[in-house]
Amino acid sequence: MAAIKVHGSVLSTAAQRVFACLYEKELEFELVPVDMGSGEHKKEPYLSLNPFGQVPAFEHGDQKLFESRAITQYIAHEFANKGTKLDCPGQPIAPLLVWKEVEAHQFDPPASKLNWELVFKPMFGTSTDTAAVEENEAKLAKVLDVYEARLSQSKYLACNCFTLIDLHHLPSLNLLMKTPVKKLFDARPHVSAWVADITSRPAWTKVLAMANK
Amino acid sequence: MAAIKVHGSVLSTAAQRVFACLYEKELEFELVPVDMGSGEHKKEPYLSLNPFGQVPAFEHGDQKLFESRAITQYIAHEFANKGTKLDCPGQPIAPLLVWKEVEAHQFDPPASKLNWELVFKPMFGTSTDTAAVEENEAKLAKVLDVYEARLSQSKYLACNCFTLIDLHHLPSLNLLMKTPVKKLFDARPHVSAWVADITSRPAWTKVLAMANK
Repeated sequence: MAAIKVHGSVLSTAAQRVFACLYEKELEFELVPVDMGSGEHKKEPYLSLNPFGQVPAFEHGDQKLFESRAITQYIAHEFANKGTKLDCPGQPIAPLLVWKEVEAHQFDPPASKLNWELVFKPMFGTSTDTAAVEENEAKLAKVLDVYEARLSQSKYLACNCFTLIDLHHLPSLNLLMKTPVKKLFDARPHVSAWVADITSRPAWTKVLAMANK
Repeated sequence: MAAIKVHGSVLSTAAQRVFACLYEKELEFELVPVDMGSGEHKKEPYLSLNPFGQVPAFEHGDQKLFESRAITQYIAHEFANKGTKLDCPGQPIAPLLVWKEVEAHQFDPPASKLNWELVFKPMFGTSTDTAAVEENEAKLAKVLDVYEARLSQSKYLACNCFTLIDLHHLPSLNLLMKTPVKKLFDARPHVSAWVADITSRPAWTKVLAMANK
Protein backbone atom coordinates (compact mmCIF):
# COMPACT_ATOMS: atom_id res chain seq x y z
CA MET A 1 0.00 0.00 0.00
CA ALA A 2 1.20 3.52 -0.84
CA ALA A 3 2.47 5.40 2.24
CA ILE A 4 0.18 7.86 4.04
CA LYS A 5 1.63 11.09 5.47
CA VAL A 6 -0.21 13.72 7.49
CA HIS A 7 1.54 17.09 7.78
CA GLY A 8 0.27 18.93 10.82
CA SER A 9 0.16 19.25 14.57
CA VAL A 10 -1.45 16.89 17.10
CA LEU A 11 -3.15 19.93 18.68
CA SER A 12 -4.81 21.17 15.46
CA THR A 13 -8.55 20.39 15.48
CA ALA A 14 -8.53 20.01 11.69
CA ALA A 15 -5.63 17.54 11.83
CA GLN A 16 -7.40 15.62 14.64
CA ARG A 17 -10.36 15.11 12.28
CA VAL A 18 -7.98 13.32 9.88
CA PHE A 19 -6.25 11.26 12.62
CA ALA A 20 -9.67 10.09 13.92
CA CYS A 21 -10.60 8.94 10.43
CA LEU A 22 -7.29 7.11 9.91
CA TYR A 23 -7.68 5.29 13.25
CA GLU A 24 -11.31 4.34 12.45
CA LYS A 25 -10.01 2.84 9.20
CA GLU A 26 -7.14 1.11 11.04
CA LEU A 27 -4.54 2.64 8.71
CA GLU A 28 -0.86 3.18 9.40
CA PHE A 29 0.38 6.72 8.79
CA GLU A 30 3.35 8.96 9.36
CA LEU A 31 2.84 12.29 11.13
CA VAL A 32 5.14 14.97 9.72
CA PRO A 33 5.16 17.71 12.39
CA VAL A 34 4.67 21.29 11.15
CA ASP A 35 6.08 23.93 13.49
CA MET A 36 3.16 26.34 13.51
CA GLY A 37 4.76 28.42 16.27
CA SER A 38 7.49 29.53 13.86
CA GLY A 39 5.00 29.94 10.99
CA GLU A 40 6.31 26.96 9.00
CA HIS A 41 2.78 26.48 7.52
CA LYS A 42 2.86 29.98 5.97
CA LYS A 43 6.09 29.38 3.98
CA GLU A 44 7.45 27.11 1.27
CA PRO A 45 7.82 24.16 1.05
CA TYR A 46 4.58 23.76 3.10
CA LEU A 47 2.62 26.11 0.81
CA SER A 48 3.13 23.70 -2.07
CA LEU A 49 1.20 21.13 0.01
CA ASN A 50 -1.56 23.58 0.98
CA PRO A 51 -1.60 26.96 -0.79
CA PHE A 52 -3.90 28.35 1.94
CA GLY A 53 -1.18 27.82 4.57
CA GLN A 54 -3.32 25.78 6.96
CA VAL A 55 -2.80 22.36 8.52
CA PRO A 56 -3.26 19.52 7.81
CA ALA A 57 -1.96 18.48 4.41
CA PHE A 58 -2.16 14.85 3.34
CA GLU A 59 -0.25 12.56 1.01
CA HIS A 60 -1.20 9.06 -0.12
CA GLY A 61 1.37 7.96 -2.65
CA ASP A 62 1.18 10.64 -5.36
CA GLN A 63 -2.25 11.93 -4.29
CA LYS A 64 -1.96 15.20 -2.35
CA LEU A 65 -4.91 16.72 -0.51
CA PHE A 66 -5.75 19.52 1.92
CA GLU A 67 -8.96 20.64 3.72
CA SER A 68 -9.67 18.16 6.53
CA ARG A 69 -13.19 17.19 5.38
CA ALA A 70 -11.92 16.49 1.86
CA ILE A 71 -9.20 14.26 3.32
CA THR A 72 -11.65 12.26 5.48
CA GLN A 73 -13.94 11.73 2.48
CA TYR A 74 -10.99 10.61 0.39
CA ILE A 75 -9.92 8.11 3.08
CA ALA A 76 -13.49 6.78 3.47
CA HIS A 77 -13.75 6.38 -0.31
CA GLU A 78 -10.32 4.84 -0.95
CA PHE A 79 -10.46 2.46 2.03
CA ALA A 80 -14.18 1.69 1.92
CA ASN A 81 -13.60 -1.94 2.91
CA LYS A 82 -11.23 -1.32 5.83
CA GLY A 83 -12.18 -0.67 9.50
CA THR A 84 -15.35 1.28 10.35
CA LYS A 85 -17.72 1.77 7.41
CA LEU A 86 -18.36 5.50 8.15
CA ASP A 87 -21.41 5.72 5.88
CA CYS A 88 -25.01 4.43 5.92
CA PRO A 89 -24.95 1.05 4.12
CA GLY A 90 -28.14 0.30 2.18
CA GLN A 91 -29.72 3.64 3.13
CA PRO A 92 -30.72 6.59 0.90
CA ILE A 93 -27.86 9.04 0.28
CA ALA A 94 -29.85 12.21 1.11
CA PRO A 95 -29.42 12.35 4.94
CA LEU A 96 -25.65 11.77 4.65
CA LEU A 97 -25.36 14.70 2.21
CA VAL A 98 -27.63 16.98 4.26
CA TRP A 99 -26.04 16.39 7.67
CA LYS A 100 -22.52 16.70 6.26
CA GLU A 101 -23.38 20.27 5.22
CA VAL A 102 -25.13 20.93 8.55
CA GLU A 103 -21.92 20.19 10.47
CA ALA A 104 -19.89 22.47 8.15
CA HIS A 105 -22.33 25.39 7.86
CA GLN A 106 -24.45 25.32 11.05
CA PHE A 107 -22.44 23.62 13.83
CA ASP A 108 -18.84 24.46 13.00
CA PRO A 109 -19.00 28.29 12.69
CA PRO A 110 -20.32 28.97 16.24
CA ALA A 111 -18.37 26.01 17.72
CA SER A 112 -15.06 27.23 16.23
CA LYS A 113 -15.72 30.82 17.26
CA LEU A 114 -16.47 29.71 20.86
CA ASN A 115 -13.29 27.61 21.00
CA TRP A 116 -11.34 30.58 19.67
CA GLU A 117 -12.70 32.86 22.41
CA LEU A 118 -12.73 30.37 25.30
CA VAL A 119 -9.79 28.03 24.61
CA PHE A 120 -7.26 29.56 22.21
CA LYS A 121 -7.38 33.26 23.21
CA PRO A 122 -6.69 32.45 26.92
CA MET A 123 -3.89 30.08 25.76
CA PHE A 124 -2.29 32.96 23.80
CA GLY A 125 -2.87 35.39 26.68
CA THR A 126 -5.37 37.62 24.84
CA SER A 127 -8.74 38.53 26.31
CA THR A 128 -12.04 36.85 25.51
CA ASP A 129 -14.73 38.89 23.74
CA THR A 130 -17.73 38.20 26.00
CA ALA A 131 -20.25 39.64 23.51
CA ALA A 132 -18.98 37.22 20.84
CA VAL A 133 -19.30 34.34 23.34
CA GLU A 134 -22.89 35.27 24.15
CA GLU A 135 -23.85 35.64 20.47
CA ASN A 136 -22.30 32.30 19.49
CA GLU A 137 -23.70 30.44 22.52
CA ALA A 138 -27.17 31.54 21.39
CA LYS A 139 -26.45 30.32 17.83
CA LEU A 140 -25.07 26.99 19.06
CA ALA A 141 -28.05 26.47 21.39
CA LYS A 142 -30.42 26.72 18.38
CA VAL A 143 -28.31 24.24 16.42
CA LEU A 144 -28.33 21.82 19.38
CA ASP A 145 -32.13 22.08 19.59
CA VAL A 146 -32.27 20.74 16.03
CA TYR A 147 -29.70 18.04 16.93
CA GLU A 148 -31.77 17.00 19.98
CA ALA A 149 -34.83 16.47 17.76
CA ARG A 150 -32.78 14.62 15.14
CA LEU A 151 -31.02 12.37 17.68
CA SER A 152 -34.34 11.40 19.26
CA GLN A 153 -35.22 9.75 15.90
CA SER A 154 -31.84 8.46 14.77
CA LYS A 155 -28.94 7.09 16.85
CA TYR A 156 -26.37 9.17 14.93
CA LEU A 157 -26.84 12.27 12.78
CA ALA A 158 -27.00 10.73 9.30
CA CYS A 159 -28.51 7.33 10.20
CA ASN A 160 -28.28 4.63 12.90
CA CYS A 161 -24.58 4.08 12.14
CA PHE A 162 -21.60 6.20 13.21
CA THR A 163 -20.50 8.08 10.07
CA LEU A 164 -18.02 10.71 8.90
CA ILE A 165 -20.61 13.32 9.90
CA ASP A 166 -20.40 12.43 13.61
CA LEU A 167 -16.62 12.10 13.32
CA HIS A 168 -16.28 15.62 11.85
CA HIS A 169 -17.70 17.05 15.11
CA LEU A 170 -15.22 15.35 17.46
CA PRO A 171 -12.29 17.82 17.69
CA SER A 172 -14.40 20.95 18.30
CA LEU A 173 -16.79 19.06 20.55
CA ASN A 174 -13.93 17.77 22.67
CA LEU A 175 -12.65 21.31 23.33
CA LEU A 176 -16.13 22.76 23.97
CA MET A 177 -16.75 20.13 26.67
CA LYS A 178 -13.88 21.66 28.67
CA THR A 179 -15.54 25.12 28.64
CA PRO A 180 -18.73 26.49 30.26
CA VAL A 181 -20.45 25.82 26.90
CA LYS A 182 -20.66 22.17 28.07
CA LYS A 183 -23.91 23.14 29.80
CA LEU A 184 -25.62 23.49 26.39
CA PHE A 185 -24.84 19.85 25.61
CA ASP A 186 -25.65 18.57 29.13
CA ALA A 187 -29.10 20.20 29.01
CA ARG A 188 -30.15 18.05 26.03
CA PRO A 189 -30.41 14.31 26.84
CA HIS A 190 -30.12 12.87 23.32
CA VAL A 191 -27.26 15.23 22.43
CA SER A 192 -25.56 14.33 25.71
CA ALA A 193 -25.83 10.59 25.06
CA TRP A 194 -24.47 11.11 21.52
CA VAL A 195 -21.49 13.11 22.84
CA ALA A 196 -20.72 10.40 25.42
CA ASP A 197 -20.97 7.72 22.73
CA ILE A 198 -18.81 9.30 20.01
CA THR A 199 -16.13 10.69 22.35
CA SER A 200 -15.59 7.24 23.91
CA ARG A 201 -14.78 5.52 20.61
CA PRO A 202 -11.36 3.79 20.66
CA ALA A 203 -10.21 5.71 17.55
CA TRP A 204 -10.92 9.05 19.24
CA THR A 205 -9.18 7.89 22.45
CA LYS A 206 -6.07 7.28 20.32
CA VAL A 207 -6.24 10.84 18.95
CA LEU A 208 -6.43 12.24 22.50
CA ALA A 209 -3.48 10.05 23.52
CA MET A 210 -1.43 11.57 20.64
CA ALA A 211 -2.40 15.10 21.72
CA ASN A 212 -1.57 14.44 25.40
CA LYS A 213 1.84 12.87 24.84
CA MET B 1 -40.19 10.58 -12.70
CA ALA B 2 -40.99 11.73 -9.16
CA ALA B 3 -41.83 15.46 -9.01
CA ILE B 4 -39.15 17.95 -7.95
CA LYS B 5 -40.10 20.94 -5.77
CA VAL B 6 -37.82 23.75 -4.64
CA HIS B 7 -39.14 25.86 -1.76
CA GLY B 8 -37.44 29.24 -1.77
CA SER B 9 -37.05 32.63 -3.40
CA VAL B 10 -35.56 33.47 -6.80
CA LEU B 11 -33.41 36.11 -5.08
CA SER B 12 -31.83 33.74 -2.52
CA THR B 13 -28.23 32.94 -3.46
CA ALA B 14 -28.54 29.47 -1.89
CA ALA B 15 -31.70 28.73 -3.89
CA GLN B 16 -29.99 30.01 -7.07
CA ARG B 17 -27.28 27.36 -6.54
CA VAL B 18 -29.99 24.69 -6.72
CA PHE B 19 -31.77 26.26 -9.73
CA ALA B 20 -28.44 26.41 -11.64
CA CYS B 21 -27.89 22.71 -10.96
CA LEU B 22 -31.43 21.76 -12.05
CA TYR B 23 -31.02 23.71 -15.31
CA GLU B 24 -27.61 22.12 -15.98
CA LYS B 25 -29.28 18.73 -15.56
CA GLU B 26 -32.23 19.81 -17.79
CA LEU B 27 -34.76 18.85 -15.13
CA GLU B 28 -38.31 20.14 -14.74
CA PHE B 29 -39.15 21.51 -11.29
CA GLU B 30 -41.79 23.45 -9.42
CA LEU B 31 -40.74 26.56 -7.48
CA VAL B 32 -42.82 26.93 -4.31
CA PRO B 33 -42.32 30.58 -3.28
CA VAL B 34 -41.50 31.20 0.39
CA ASP B 35 -42.45 34.69 1.61
CA MET B 36 -39.25 35.54 3.47
CA GLY B 37 -40.41 39.15 4.00
CA SER B 38 -43.13 37.93 6.37
CA GLY B 39 -40.80 35.34 7.96
CA GLU B 40 -42.60 32.32 6.48
CA HIS B 41 -39.28 30.40 6.57
CA LYS B 42 -39.03 30.80 10.35
CA LYS B 43 -42.44 29.18 11.06
CA GLU B 44 -44.24 25.88 10.56
CA PRO B 45 -44.98 24.29 8.16
CA TYR B 46 -41.68 25.47 6.57
CA LEU B 47 -39.60 24.41 9.58
CA SER B 48 -40.60 20.81 8.98
CA LEU B 49 -38.85 21.10 5.58
CA ASN B 50 -35.75 22.82 7.03
CA PRO B 51 -35.45 22.95 10.83
CA PHE B 52 -32.81 25.72 10.51
CA GLY B 53 -35.37 28.05 8.92
CA GLN B 54 -33.34 28.85 5.81
CA VAL B 55 -34.15 28.58 2.12
CA PRO B 56 -34.10 26.52 0.00
CA ALA B 57 -35.74 23.22 0.88
CA PHE B 58 -36.05 20.51 -1.73
CA GLU B 59 -38.37 17.59 -2.41
CA HIS B 60 -37.92 14.79 -4.92
CA GLY B 61 -40.78 12.38 -4.42
CA ASP B 62 -40.46 11.32 -0.78
CA GLN B 63 -36.81 12.47 -0.44
CA LYS B 64 -36.60 15.78 1.44
CA LEU B 65 -33.37 17.78 1.64
CA PHE B 66 -32.03 21.14 2.76
CA GLU B 67 -28.59 22.87 2.59
CA SER B 68 -27.98 23.98 -0.99
CA ARG B 69 -24.70 22.09 -1.50
CA ALA B 70 -26.28 18.86 -0.24
CA ILE B 71 -29.14 19.36 -2.72
CA THR B 72 -26.82 19.94 -5.69
CA GLN B 73 -24.79 16.82 -4.82
CA TYR B 74 -28.01 14.81 -4.52
CA ILE B 75 -29.18 16.05 -7.95
CA ALA B 76 -25.77 15.29 -9.54
CA HIS B 77 -25.83 11.80 -8.02
CA GLU B 78 -29.46 10.90 -8.79
CA PHE B 79 -29.39 12.30 -12.32
CA ALA B 80 -25.80 11.38 -13.21
CA ASN B 81 -26.75 10.53 -16.79
CA LYS B 82 -28.82 13.65 -17.56
CA GLY B 83 -27.55 17.01 -18.91
CA THR B 84 -24.12 18.32 -17.87
CA LYS B 85 -21.93 15.73 -16.13
CA LEU B 86 -20.78 18.14 -13.33
CA ASP B 87 -17.88 15.92 -12.22
CA CYS B 88 -14.47 14.89 -13.61
CA PRO B 89 -15.06 11.68 -15.62
CA GLY B 90 -12.13 9.28 -15.52
CA GLN B 91 -10.11 11.54 -13.20
CA PRO B 92 -8.92 10.93 -9.61
CA ILE B 93 -11.51 11.94 -7.00
CA ALA B 94 -9.09 13.98 -4.81
CA PRO B 95 -9.24 17.40 -6.58
CA LEU B 96 -13.04 17.32 -6.67
CA LEU B 97 -13.16 16.68 -2.90
CA VAL B 98 -10.50 19.31 -2.11
CA TRP B 99 -11.92 22.15 -4.23
CA LYS B 100 -15.46 21.51 -3.00
CA GLU B 101 -14.26 22.26 0.53
CA VAL B 102 -12.20 25.24 -0.68
CA GLU B 103 -15.34 26.92 -2.06
CA ALA B 104 -17.23 26.27 1.20
CA HIS B 105 -14.51 27.16 3.71
CA GLN B 106 -12.19 29.63 1.90
CA PHE B 107 -14.19 31.44 -0.81
CA ASP B 108 -17.70 31.56 0.58
CA PRO B 109 -17.12 33.15 4.02
CA PRO B 110 -15.47 36.40 2.74
CA ALA B 111 -17.66 36.45 -0.42
CA SER B 112 -20.89 36.16 1.61
CA LYS B 113 -19.73 38.73 4.14
CA LEU B 114 -18.88 41.21 1.33
CA ASN B 115 -22.25 40.68 -0.32
CA TRP B 116 -23.95 41.21 3.05
CA GLU B 117 -22.13 44.53 3.56
CA LEU B 118 -22.20 45.81 -0.05
CA VAL B 119 -25.43 44.42 -1.52
CA PHE B 120 -27.92 43.40 1.18
CA LYS B 121 -27.31 46.06 3.87
CA PRO B 122 -27.82 48.94 1.36
CA MET B 123 -30.95 47.12 0.09
CA PHE B 124 -32.33 47.04 3.67
CA GLY B 125 -31.28 50.65 4.31
CA THR B 126 -28.65 49.86 6.96
CA SER B 127 -25.09 51.17 6.75
CA THR B 128 -22.08 49.26 5.48
CA ASP B 129 -19.30 48.41 7.95
CA THR B 130 -16.27 49.66 6.01
CA ALA B 131 -13.76 47.92 8.33
CA ALA B 132 -15.49 44.57 7.66
CA VAL B 133 -15.36 45.28 3.91
CA GLU B 134 -11.64 46.01 4.05
CA GLU B 135 -10.88 42.90 6.15
CA ASN B 136 -12.88 40.60 3.86
CA GLU B 137 -11.51 42.14 0.65
CA ALA B 138 -8.02 41.28 1.92
CA LYS B 139 -9.13 37.70 2.70
CA LEU B 140 -10.81 37.29 -0.69
CA ALA B 141 -7.75 38.69 -2.52
CA LYS B 142 -5.60 35.93 -0.97
CA VAL B 143 -8.12 33.27 -1.98
CA LEU B 144 -8.18 34.65 -5.55
CA ASP B 145 -4.37 34.50 -5.70
CA VAL B 146 -4.65 30.75 -5.08
CA TYR B 147 -7.45 30.51 -7.68
CA GLU B 148 -5.31 32.39 -10.23
CA ALA B 149 -2.50 29.84 -9.82
CA ARG B 150 -4.94 26.91 -9.95
CA LEU B 151 -6.78 28.22 -13.04
CA SER B 152 -3.50 28.70 -14.90
CA GLN B 153 -3.06 24.90 -14.70
CA SER B 154 -6.63 23.69 -15.02
CA LYS B 155 -9.53 25.17 -17.05
CA TYR B 156 -11.96 24.83 -14.11
CA LEU B 157 -11.26 24.43 -10.40
CA ALA B 158 -11.52 20.65 -10.00
CA CYS B 159 -10.39 19.60 -13.48
CA ASN B 160 -10.73 20.62 -17.14
CA CYS B 161 -14.53 20.13 -16.98
CA PHE B 162 -17.14 22.46 -15.48
CA THR B 163 -18.22 20.79 -12.22
CA LEU B 164 -20.45 21.37 -9.19
CA ILE B 165 -17.50 23.21 -7.61
CA ASP B 166 -17.54 25.99 -10.22
CA LEU B 167 -21.35 26.04 -10.10
CA HIS B 168 -21.39 26.53 -6.31
CA HIS B 169 -19.58 29.89 -6.78
CA LEU B 170 -22.07 31.38 -9.27
CA PRO B 171 -24.66 33.12 -7.05
CA SER B 172 -22.16 34.95 -4.78
CA LEU B 173 -19.86 35.68 -7.71
CA ASN B 174 -22.70 37.23 -9.70
CA LEU B 175 -23.49 39.66 -6.87
CA LEU B 176 -19.84 40.52 -6.19
CA MET B 177 -19.36 41.48 -9.85
CA LYS B 178 -21.88 44.31 -9.33
CA THR B 179 -19.81 45.78 -6.45
CA PRO B 180 -16.38 47.47 -6.30
CA VAL B 181 -14.99 44.02 -5.31
CA LYS B 182 -15.17 43.23 -9.07
CA LYS B 183 -11.69 44.80 -9.31
CA LEU B 184 -10.19 41.83 -7.43
CA PHE B 185 -11.44 39.47 -10.14
CA ASP B 186 -10.57 41.80 -13.05
CA ALA B 187 -6.95 42.06 -11.83
CA ARG B 188 -6.38 38.31 -12.26
CA PRO B 189 -6.52 37.15 -15.92
CA HIS B 190 -7.22 33.44 -15.36
CA VAL B 191 -9.82 34.17 -12.68
CA SER B 192 -11.38 36.76 -14.98
CA ALA B 193 -11.63 34.33 -17.91
CA TRP B 194 -13.14 31.69 -15.60
CA VAL B 195 -15.77 34.17 -14.31
CA ALA B 196 -16.68 35.15 -17.90
CA ASP B 197 -16.95 31.48 -18.88
CA ILE B 198 -19.08 30.19 -16.02
CA THR B 199 -21.40 33.21 -15.79
CA SER B 200 -22.25 32.91 -19.51
CA ARG B 201 -23.48 29.31 -19.29
CA PRO B 202 -27.07 28.92 -20.59
CA ALA B 203 -28.18 27.32 -17.29
CA TRP B 204 -26.98 30.34 -15.29
CA THR B 205 -28.62 32.74 -17.78
CA LYS B 206 -31.91 30.96 -17.01
CA VAL B 207 -31.40 31.51 -13.27
CA LEU B 208 -30.81 35.24 -13.86
CA ALA B 209 -33.93 35.40 -16.05
CA MET B 210 -35.98 33.90 -13.16
CA ALA B 211 -34.52 36.44 -10.72
CA ASN B 212 -35.17 39.40 -13.06
CA LYS B 213 -38.78 38.53 -13.91
